[in-house]
Amino acid sequence: MKYINELREGDITHDIYLCKSVQSLVAKNGKNYLSIALQDKTGILDAKVWDVTSGGIEDFDALDYLYVEGEVTVFQGTMQLKCRRIRKCREGEYNPADYLPYSRFDLDTMYKKLNEYINLVKDPFLKKLLESFFIEDEEFKKAFKMHSAAKSVHHGFVGGLLEHTLSVTSLCVKFAEQYSFLNKDLLITAAICHDIGKTKELSDMPANDYTDDGNLLGHIVIGYEMVGERIEKIEGFPHALGSMLRHCILAHHGEYEYGSPKKPAIAEAIALHFADNLDAKMETMRELLESADYNAEWLGFQRLFESNMRKTTY
Amino acid sequence: MKYINELREGDITHDIYLCKSVQSLVAKNGKNYLSIALQDKTGILDAKVWDVTSGGIEDFDALDYLYVEGEVTVFQGTMQLKCRRIRKCREGEYNPADYLPYSRFDLDTMYKKLNEYINLVKDPFLKKLLESFFIEDEEFKKAFKMHSAAKSVHHGFVGGLLEHTLSVTSLCVKFAEQYSFLNKDLLITAAICHDIGKTKELSDMPANDYTDDGNLLGHIVIGYEMVGERIEKIEGFPHALGSMLRHCILAHHGEYEYGSPKKPAIAEAIALHFADNLDAKMETMRELLESADYNAEWLGFQRLFESNMRKTTY
Amino acid sequence: MKYINELREGDITHDIYLCKSVQSLVAKNGKNYLSIALQDKTGILDAKVWDVTSGGIEDFDALDYLYVEGEVTVFQGTMQLKCRRIRKCREGEYNPADYLPYSRFDLDTMYKKLNEYINLVKDPFLKKLLESFFIEDEEFKKAFKMHSAAKSVHHGFVGGLLEHTLSVTSLCVKFAEQYSFLNKDLLITAAICHDIGKTKELSDMPANDYTDDGNLLGHIVIGYEMVGERIEKIEGFPHALGSMLRHCILAHHGEYEYGSPKKPAIAEAIALHFADNLDAKMETMRELLESADYNAEWLGFQRLFESNMRKTTY
Amino acid sequence: MKYINELREGDITHDIYLCKSVQSLVAKNGKNYLSIALQDKTGILDAKVWDVTSGGIEDFDALDYLYVEGEVTVFQGTMQLKCRRIRKCREGEYNPADYLPYSRFDLDTMYKKLNEYINLVKDPFLKKLLESFFIEDEEFKKAFKMHSAAKSVHHGFVGGLLEHTLSVTSLCVKFAEQYSFLNKDLLITAAICHDIGKTKELSDMPANDYTDDGNLLGHIVIGYEMVGERIEKIEGFPHALGSMLRHCILAHHGEYEYGSPKKPAIAEAIALHFADNLDAKMETMRELLESADYNAEWLGFQRLFESNMRKTTY
Amino acid sequence: MKYINELREGDITHDIYLCKSVQSLVAKNGKNYLSIALQDKTGILDAKVWDVTSGGIEDFDALDYLYVEGEVTVFQGTMQLKCRRIRKCREGEYNPADYLPYSRFDLDTMYKKLNEYINLVKDPFLKKLLESFFIEDEEFKKAFKMHSAAKSVHHGFVGGLLEHTLSVTSLCVKFAEQYSFLNKDLLITAAICHDIGKTKELSDMPANDYTDDGNLLGHIVIGYEMVGERIEKIEGFPHALGSMLRHCILAHHGEYEYGSPKKPAIAEAIALHFADNLDAKMETMRELLESADYNAEWLGFQRLFESNMRKTTY
Amino acid sequence: MKYINELREGDITHDIYLCKSVQSLVAKNGKNYLSIALQDKTGILDAKVWDVTSGGIEDFDALDYLYVEGEVTVFQGTMQLKCRRIRKCREGEYNPADYLPYSRFDLDTMYKKLNEYINLVKDPFLKKLLESFFIEDEEFKKAFKMHSAAKSVHHGFVGGLLEHTLSVTSLCVKFAEQYSFLNKDLLITAAICHDIGKTKELSDMPANDYTDDGNLLGHIVIGYEMVGERIEKIEGFPHALGSMLRHCILAHHGEYEYGSPKKPAIAEAIALHFADNLDAKMETMRELLESADYNAEWLGFQRLFESNMRKTTY
Repeated sequence: MKYINELREGDITHDIYLCKSVQSLVAKNGKNYLSIALQDKTGILDAKVWDVTSGGIEDFDALDYLYVEGEVTVFQGTMQLKCRRIRKCREGEYNPADYLPYSRFDLDTMYKKLNEYINLVKDPFLKKLLESFFIEDEEFKKAFKMHSAAKSVHHGFVGGLLEHTLSVTSLCVKFAEQYSFLNKDLLITAAICHDIGKTKELSDMPANDYTDDGNLLGHIVIGYEMVGERIEKIEGFPHALGSMLRHCILAHHGEYEYGSPKKPAIAEAIALHFADNLDAKMETMRELLESADYNAEWLGFQRLFESNMRKTTY
Repeated sequence: MKYINELREGDITHDIYLCKSVQSLVAKNGKNYLSIALQDKTGILDAKVWDVTSGGIEDFDALDYLYVEGEVTVFQGTMQLKCRRIRKCREGEYNPADYLPYSRFDLDTMYKKLNEYINLVKDPFLKKLLESFFIEDEEFKKAFKMHSAAKSVHHGFVGGLLEHTLSVTSLCVKFAEQYSFLNKDLLITAAICHDIGKTKELSDMPANDYTDDGNLLGHIVIGYEMVGERIEKIEGFPHALGSMLRHCILAHHGEYEYGSPKKPAIAEAIALHFADNLDAKMETMRELLESADYNAEWLGFQRLFESNMRKTTY
Repeated sequence: MKYINELREGDITHDIYLCKSVQSLVAKNGKNYLSIALQDKTGILDAKVWDVTSGGIEDFDALDYLYVEGEVTVFQGTMQLKCRRIRKCREGEYNPADYLPYSRFDLDTMYKKLNEYINLVKDPFLKKLLESFFIEDEEFKKAFKMHSAAKSVHHGFVGGLLEHTLSVTSLCVKFAEQYSFLNKDLLITAAICHDIGKTKELSDMPANDYTDDGNLLGHIVIGYEMVGERIEKIEGFPHALGSMLRHCILAHHGEYEYGSPKKPAIAEAIALHFADNLDAKMETMRELLESADYNAEWLGFQRLFESNMRKTTY
Repeated sequence: MKYINELREGDITHDIYLCKSVQSLVAKNGKNYLSIALQDKTGILDAKVWDVTSGGIEDFDALDYLYVEGEVTVFQGTMQLKCRRIRKCREGEYNPADYLPYSRFDLDTMYKKLNEYINLVKDPFLKKLLESFFIEDEEFKKAFKMHSAAKSVHHGFVGGLLEHTLSVTSLCVKFAEQYSFLNKDLLITAAICHDIGKTKELSDMPANDYTDDGNLLGHIVIGYEMVGERIEKIEGFPHALGSMLRHCILAHHGEYEYGSPKKPAIAEAIALHFADNLDAKMETMRELLESADYNAEWLGFQRLFESNMRKTTY
Repeated sequence: MKYINELREGDITHDIYLCKSVQSLVAKNGKNYLSIALQDKTGILDAKVWDVTSGGIEDFDALDYLYVEGEVTVFQGTMQLKCRRIRKCREGEYNPADYLPYSRFDLDTMYKKLNEYINLVKDPFLKKLLESFFIEDEEFKKAFKMHSAAKSVHHGFVGGLLEHTLSVTSLCVKFAEQYSFLNKDLLITAAICHDIGKTKELSDMPANDYTDDGNLLGHIVIGYEMVGERIEKIEGFPHALGSMLRHCILAHHGEYEYGSPKKPAIAEAIALHFADNLDAKMETMRELLESADYNAEWLGFQRLFESNMRKTTY
Repeated sequence: MKYINELREGDITHDIYLCKSVQSLVAKNGKNYLSIALQDKTGILDAKVWDVTSGGIEDFDALDYLYVEGEVTVFQGTMQLKCRRIRKCREGEYNPADYLPYSRFDLDTMYKKLNEYINLVKDPFLKKLLESFFIEDEEFKKAFKMHSAAKSVHHGFVGGLLEHTLSVTSLCVKFAEQYSFLNKDLLITAAICHDIGKTKELSDMPANDYTDDGNLLGHIVIGYEMVGERIEKIEGFPHALGSMLRHCILAHHGEYEYGSPKKPAIAEAIALHFADNLDAKMETMRELLESADYNAEWLGFQRLFESNMRKTTY
């Protein structure tokens, strides 16, 4: 398979790509044509079907995998594929992993690590809560494992939510070791649950876009409510413990202007906010360094950091 | 009964007051004494029992109604009651309305007006939701009717939550008349429900203080969750309608820095935010004007308005 | 007449358009050509005269109505009219209403409504002030009736200033009904006068651009001064009343950062600010909803609202 | 005469002081007493008349000069004068200069300097405008010469407005010399007029408090309007020149948050803003250094400078 | 020895205290007296010598250890010691550890731990730099070991700078383990050096106040310069390495408004800023929890956290 | 010579230009080509060598002066030079002044003026410090004289740093005359030294780009350190004087958010900040006015001034 980032002007494709979106439009000459976004894990390619009535174009929808024959052209500086034949593919003809950005780490190995963190929790109520999501709820498990953690910024890939959650939890465990007054059980639980609302804020990969609820409500209060509903079902769960755990979720963005309706009011909420924020910044930095030119030292102004950023070299 | 704001140095009291709080402290000479805050609807009075072992002092707790004999003294510029006798009173000996600030309006009349607003709602799901709270749930009704809308700022009196809710709803009805693209049913429902979380954020009068959940979670997300739980129980309630209604509750403070985790994203959420904000400002202004000296024109710098405020006179 | 938003590539025009602006430029080959912005109420069209010395092009200026023959072409994705003949039209050949965006409401009907509001004012001085502008001053009346309320944002059409003024006054009347301590006469007068400075801040339609004074002084202080000059001429006008009315005008943007040199210091100034702000937001929302695709739910990030905005649908 | 800052506990006064304010109050024992603020140029003294019915106390009002006999006591750490006799004085019995803070510079000498600056202006319209205020208008001249420039911060003394105006104009003359593209006539005129609204924003010394118009409108727009009214009366005054001059007045605070309804849009407005701001800071610093202990190096946190400030010593 | 927080009204002292400051003042009756601040590790006590000429008062200065005989009185609600005898003590009469707040951890043990961190650094230049400060420079070592890390907020005790430095370094080591692209040698070195400027910004304990250089220059640029001077002396130290290390010091406050003249531009600078900020917040929280009442759950509004803070209990 | 701003489509060049940068790239057809930025004092020209293997193209690097034969074409609206021959030139073939923007003032005359300012300084230590840089240090003198004061904003030309320094010093001399409490020697010295760090923050013209140290450290702390190193070498230089001088350098941006790690704490630091800020704004305004169309009155929104700016005309 020739990946999208390897295509050059004049190439002829005979490959399968994922259809991210498709629109039927009217050209300036009054004729209908299709404008398609094809995707693989290396990027996105603009494709056109100019003659929709010609024989070679089967019916298809967004998120179908398509076998496409066409010619790579360059229009106004960007590549465009003129499609001659399109055919919908069956499962088995392609490997989904070729079409979506994936975590560097194996999903199952990561999930096993998550279970180890859950086993660190001694408090029976918190443990039961975690198990009800991450062990007993198969639908949730599947969604959580495959989800990205973001639409476009850091961790925007399959397994991103799991990878970010593990990394935040790992930091929290270290913080609890260094600062003994932190309640380790509460902090680990909050770390593992802090972003579970993202399973509903963002639609599944490959769409990976904000859902209606994501836009209207946001992952913070969605997650807050998901945890609340489970706590209701656990008999004897101490009310104050539930409130403190849910406070950690509400406050994990740290500041009102980042969408937290409460500022951290307990030590564990502060620690969680730091862990979340640090991991977001470190992963952004990692992705930036990875995508940088080999020889570049300065990488340009980055909004998240409000600074021109530099590789560490000497 | 002599009200607290009528007491003068040298007066001897033989009256019943509400005990807002009581603390046992150690004086500099090593002896125990009691420091008590007595309250009636006109103010709060600092009282002391210097000799706790003397015969006349019965056992009592905060929120008891107390018959108190003592002498009014002045210490460092503020009045203080030296108590000689304290006796706990039974229901019937006093009229609670003398001890708490009350709305200017009759509670039952206001509640009837609320029902009229509910009857304006045509959408069967929204109507059912409102009825489940305000008509069918006796415990909620009682709490909602008696609650204040704030600890210390505007509407900090019995019936304040109801009065504020009515006033916001009245504005929203007017807005819906003037701007026809507003969804009147959604807007009225959101107005009526916007502050129901305050029934759990603040404890009942006379305590009227932030609860643990109030501090950790806040009335915005508490109300969001209360509405969500009820919606779950109404068969066929359209998911998008529930999300839009709950978005209005989340966004009703209008800005992140005032604790809303989402900015208003639909027209009804904007209208609700304006109604809530305007009513808060108008009631604050009304209370300020009411408490001002008769002859004063300028009333001093007011933080809420970031300005020295003036009576309108000419 | 074929409106600008109906033109397609290849069309030949034989219609009258308003010339919004015209520039004489030098092409890269050294020849002069004309670049013209043609306008009707549906949009703006880029037109070129490549051969200015050919016989068919008469002399004309910006704001003339022009009969234009030419061919619609597409250049770099936008439509362009290649003009062959241009002729200046006389009054009577065209209907100005076809060339300017107009209010949805009839100007005379709106002006009658404004008179009704003026008749609500009982205070003889305020009434005399309003009459001196809106009844006795013919030049002002004409300007006020036709003016837009903005260059590019909400109410940017003929009659926009009148429509916005009516809407703000209507809200203020409602506020005065709900909050009885508001001085209704003062509030209505302030509402009607709050934006009269815009008659000098913006030039007449169709130019509708900031004047020199508009840029240097702004409509807030221009209006403040217009009101002050009239008050001078009304014998016995109470000084404090004049100052409070003019304070309302100065403070109607509510915040320093929006160009108000004073924060609202009286209740009526607060109410006016809310009415002005709410009407601006509601009209912006109305225009946004009107221009949205029929099927779209989410309408994209809107700077005024600092949010992705959504149609209310369920 | 013994100045207020020289009085000590136990002293008996036989001196004349200015009555800044007087209030009739009711003591805790129910008797009336008078609370008086006495002032001289060195400070303010709290005085009481406990027995208003005793023979020695004549009738008087705020701003009268009073001969006072009494005894200096100390109450809760501050000095208090127990008055036995009070008599209203006639003009001639006292020297007003002993009772008000005055500029270090002679008022007439300063006014002469102001005339010299006026004579630098060549433009006939600007010159006529300046003369109409500062030469022909006797009432304005008197007010301008005696006024302070502030209620409590820098230049809060008789002649302060004149001193500040001279200093700002002196800086502007220097700026016009260094930056030749600045219009010297416009800049000098703007500098001389920039704060004339303060003659109406603050009441005369010794009251020196915000007037009703000062609070409602502020000196910026008051001065803008004063200049506008005079321009109206000067035949042929170029409109654009008037607008630019008045823009300089509106914009001289430089930022919206400091009450300017427009940001500086011409070079002269920028220069004026810098001169005004620098002179305010330098005079604040001068007053701070003058009032500092001889040995102190660090002078404490100063809000205007957002810093702990230091004397320059080495 | 009776500690200051154990003294009660009427007690007679025969103990040694540290003199934090002493002033000679003039009483309202014209007599001189001494106002002294006595300190031990539990608090500060206001003491007075009313009769400085009586026989029992020896000469002394601030920071002397004084044997004091006197009587504990209460004046306006706070305790005051009326001194009858004061005698300067010799070294050996007292244990300095009784008079200063100390770290919970042993200074030598902590310093050993610091050496272990230094030994983790492999880069020869960075190692040499660290050794030149922390191993070879005896004067610096002593100052660094004893210094507090702040005048009044977190870590304001003997050994505070060392304790904070260790804690920040420990976090940085953990971050380098978790995020492998971080340069561990650079990060550890930056962590150890980030606050060395505090040895010159604050005077030694017990004075522990801002020095002249501390106020004028601040610990960030002082530390930046200290590191620069040492690097100059290490032959071959790579210039870019020195700049990146010093960048980390400059940027460790993370934001301009907290006094960093540069925002973090390399990953290590980000990580250091997080470690510094987290440790400051955790130690503040620890001190807050330690000083809280045993039964209190809510600990009041804390400016650093912009929130009412709560103990974690359930 | 035909300057870049005079070239037109179709012209053939036979001229020398400065090579600002050169990159070897791969075209979409897989062939190598060169993309070159050519510069003279009137602008920058995009040039291409499509056939790098053809005979006429000599080897060259960025910052070489190149004789270029080619044809001017227009591609996507901007001019592009298709190069046929390129030859590296020797010194003498060209006049560097044709290739770089220069100050309007003669460099030597300006440097003489700088010496006059140095001679105003009476304090022997400050004078010695200034001489060590501006008289004795030939390398520094040369760099300082030729440097720009900025990469892209005001004073971005050869001699810009010197011109700005003189202008700031001139203002400071005037301020010291008007405000006698300012220490003239300290203020002049601080003015002359305030931007010397720019000699290391920006690389030499024509590159004139941020250096690695410029990005990591910034000119404020670089200048602070340069001054510190020289002071170390002047025997007896008073420590406090050095700290105050260096404080002025640190604080000259006036606000944390503009990169000053300290706010001005002495009067001279305030005065320097005003002089620096005013000169930056006046020079920006001068450059804006100079580049404006002759007939334009309004010059468009300017970010530095946060306003649409206007020429002063009437």
